[in-house]
Amino acid sequence: MPQRMDVLRWGYRLGRDPRITTHLGLVARALGATGFLLTGDRDDDLFDNLQSVCQRFGGELETTHVPGLKHLKNHVQNGGVAVHLTMYGESYHDAIEKIPRDKHLLIVVGGAKVPAEVFKTCQFNVAVGNQPHSEVAALALFMDAWQGHKSTLREFPNAELSIQGTNDGKIVVENNSENTNEDV
Amino acid sequence: MPQRMDVLRWGYRLGRDPRITTHLGLVARALGATGFLLTGDRDDDLFDNLQSVCQRFGGELETTHVPGLKHLKNHVQNGGVAVHLTMYGESYHDAIEKIPRDKHLLIVVGGAKVPAEVFKTCQFNVAVGNQPHSEVAALALFMDAWQGHKSTLREFPNAELSIQGTNDGKIVVENNSENTNEDV
Repeated sequence: MPQRMDVLRWGYRLGRDPRITTHLGLVARALGATGFLLTGDRDDDLFDNLQSVCQRFGGELETTHVPGLKHLKNHVQNGGVAVHLTMYGESYHDAIEKIPRDKHLLIVVGGAKVPAEVFKTCQFNVAVGNQPHSEVAALALFMDAWQGHKSTLREFPNAELSIQGTNDGKIVVENNSENTNEDV
Repeated sequence: MPQRMDVLRWGYRLGRDPRITTHLGLVARALGATGFLLTGDRDDDLFDNLQSVCQRFGGELETTHVPGLKHLKNHVQNGGVAVHLTMYGESYHDAIEKIPRDKHLLIVVGGAKVPAEVFKTCQFNVAVGNQPHSEVAALALFMDAWQGHKSTLREFPNAELSIQGTNDGKIVVENNSENTNEDV
């Protein structure tokens, strides 16, 4: 039984970050996180969008606003492991070998300004390359490597819609009606 | 000598997509693309931002606005291979085994509305999971898998700044002055 994995987006800014943060939430869901946590501003619409994706495409994602440092410190004090994704960190290829697999994993995705206390509280500060690119890409690459590059090979129960991948068009299956809608 | 690899962002919309599209350009650069091409609206500021990153962190990225379908068709007619990333495509794990490695690779990143002709012109329609998530994540995961999960292990020549990854703070090296700035 794999340990629980959550993603914490640090320092969300309402009005500035909704698309990037929605992408982070969708990546968290698609690649197997149990929860997607926000610190910073509250945004019920963003959580509603993520729940709507779960409704249509299946699975569950817990979406919660949390007090950042307090949540992070509690997580570590309760025996969890916290991994902060930052371009200043050590290579994820090296870090993944060291991160314990028998603990509740919290992946902290930073933003523009992450306080020094986050670096210090997280047991691992991990870089997906030391170049500036994207927290969405970093989260995806870390989650996928952590799961042996099989993170996208999962089933989502109770989906209303599912997609059958093909090189020749679009096949969307409506699971309730047993209809298949082919397009392109 | 590996073949050239470019990333084409389809259907850019000025005012709506700048952050997501900037992230795509930064991922393209960080993971080894030679060029980042846009169709749709023109945006010199976006290209300037990407060039500014190259200036500071090294390497080169060709940034070009291209006529979408014409560029894509020319690319294929001239012997190139085009891979369209779409949640409707076949699994990238399977596709990567089939995509020829001896041709100029164009990775097409779709947006909300990609015309059927893109699906038909690209030799490969490839899904990074058949779940909705993020074109930024899909691009990163595809590029990394294509390069044997070593896409972030590259050098960027002529960088003004470089970062030495560490678990204990921030180390930024100013390459011209030989100064090292440690923080946190």
